[in-house]
Amino acid sequence: MAITVVGSVAFDSIETPAGKRERCLGGAATYFSLAASYFTNVRVIAVVGEDFGKRQEAAFQARGIDTRGIERAKGKSFFWEGSYLDNLNEAKTHITDLNVFAAFEPKIPDAYRDSEFLFLANIDPVLQRRVREQMPGVKLVAGDTMNYWINDHRPALLEVLKGLDILLINDTEARVLGGNSNLVQAARAVLALGPSSLVVKHGEYGATLFHRAPQNGEEAKRTFRAPALPLEEVVDPTGAGDSFAGGFFGYLASLPEITPAAYRTAMFYGGVMGSFACERFGTERMQQLSRKEIDERFNIFRELTHLD
Amino acid sequence: MAITVVGSVAFDSIETPAGKRERCLGGAATYFSLAASYFTNVRVIAVVGEDFGKRQEAAFQARGIDTRGIERAKGKSFFWEGSYLDNLNEAKTHITDLNVFAAFEPKIPDAYRDSEFLFLANIDPVLQRRVREQMPGVKLVAGDTMNYWINDHRPALLEVLKGLDILLINDTEARVLGGNSNLVQAARAVLALGPSSLVVKHGEYGATLFHRAPQNGEEAKRTFRAPALPLEEVVDPTGAGDSFAGGFFGYLASLPEITPAAYRTAMFYGGVMGSFACERFGTERMQQLSRKEIDERFNIFRELTHLD
Repeated sequence: MAITVVGSVAFDSIETPAGKRERCLGGAATYFSLAASYFTNVRVIAVVGEDFGKRQEAAFQARGIDTRGIERAKGKSFFWEGSYLDNLNEAKTHITDLNVFAAFEPKIPDAYRDSEFLFLANIDPVLQRRVREQMPGVKLVAGDTMNYWINDHRPALLEVLKGLDILLINDTEARVLGGNSNLVQAARAVLALGPSSLVVKHGEYGATLFHRAPQNGEEAKRTFRAPALPLEEVVDPTGAGDSFAGGFFGYLASLPEITPAAYRTAMFYGGVMGSFACERFGTERMQQLSRKEIDERFNIFRELTHLD
Repeated sequence: MAITVVGSVAFDSIETPAGKRERCLGGAATYFSLAASYFTNVRVIAVVGEDFGKRQEAAFQARGIDTRGIERAKGKSFFWEGSYLDNLNEAKTHITDLNVFAAFEPKIPDAYRDSEFLFLANIDPVLQRRVREQMPGVKLVAGDTMNYWINDHRPALLEVLKGLDILLINDTEARVLGGNSNLVQAARAVLALGPSSLVVKHGEYGATLFHRAPQNGEEAKRTFRAPALPLEEVVDPTGAGDSFAGGFFGYLASLPEITPAAYRTAMFYGGVMGSFACERFGTERMQQLSRKEIDERFNIFRELTHLD
């Protein structure tokens, strides 16, 4: 079933210990879409500037991603410049130019309206909410956010959380949003804000899936830990979290029915796509995968964690 | 089969966000022994002072641990005082008094000499090596160390590593010892120093088991990640790493044959014992477990990680 995703489509300049790239295709919605496209149909809502050309468009087309919701505006696309020279686990941001995103008014193409899955990638929660409200009929809504929105736009973010089924954030974000340094207690606090499931991403240590405690005789769902793949070289961690989300949510959207076991398998597919994202600069690896490679790596994740 | 362990038996004064304890029974060999005692026979080599009384002795006796190798010396036992007020993942050491340990000359009782397993807990590598040399016939040798020895006593430590089958250290220690910030590459460098297996402990994120690359047609062994249990409250993390080692090595020593699968199961038992250790102050929890509780928690670890 189709996923509609709203978020940034951008250019990134990145420096890591492995090298440097200028203005490669980036943005949370881009990584998410590419990763999810190996599992299901994906439709993007974003805005780009006049610098978004045929080559960038082709990266989406090659993966069959619907770009009718990518609006072209006068000016430049969202631009981010950052480095990971001291710490591969945390980007140091040098420049964030919102450019055309500053005045973005998300519009949902009619062709997207039958999407049963909605992903609100990391953007201004006001925009996330606007898109959520325009798609009341979706079956499952997931989203991401970041410390900036948690700290400085909390009321708007809390409104978004009320409309989310699954929130995917990193460790620090979970502890800040939940107001507790203990992860289990922080997770419980976050789940009380709206989402019934929470995925906390631990970078190179994997991710943990928490579910809200059962209500009214509902089945208790298992907390689940998925590993990250120990990688010999992390070329570029940019987009790993968005690719995780794409693998996770893309897999869920590909299923006729979403069981508790499906969430666990989705955690593995998230880890798989996150690990691929780190292997090359920008979206390079995410553009050139095959489902066979993905499933082979899924098996490596299983061997990495399963006793038998 | 019996394990002989050499290491500290000590008194610890500990402060954590959950409270404060003065002079509780502690020391790496103590935590290790208690944890391993749920799986196999354990024999301790250590030195204590005149402050080590019947109550401390009774903690070992109650678990059937052989204390004939605990030498009584004039003076005070090893004493450590530390706190975890800012960060539960890392102790802040206030006082380390070696006391009777400063002049310790480990002697191995004849009754220990048929031990097939040897654990060199975190002490001066010169002492570790002396014990190792006195027990040439052991089947499997594992050990621990810490940054102090890695940084300031490297030549002595390198001699110990040559005689080890399994090294268990934490993340930072592995990266420093292997001289590489990438964990996979650091692990490879450490495995080139002697041990054929390396367990890297990630605190609340679990642990990873690496094996040296196969030589001469040997079977390739799987890298394996075990989780830590997401705990609602970490009362006191002191001794969690030693308890992990006790569960890990104690389980291996309990087996008639050590297969690659046994190492993976041992990683889970390590995680189980480490999680129990954190639930109460000092060795309180480690003294009062049952094998039933341990195996129930083992099943929780399985559910936390296994897809089915």
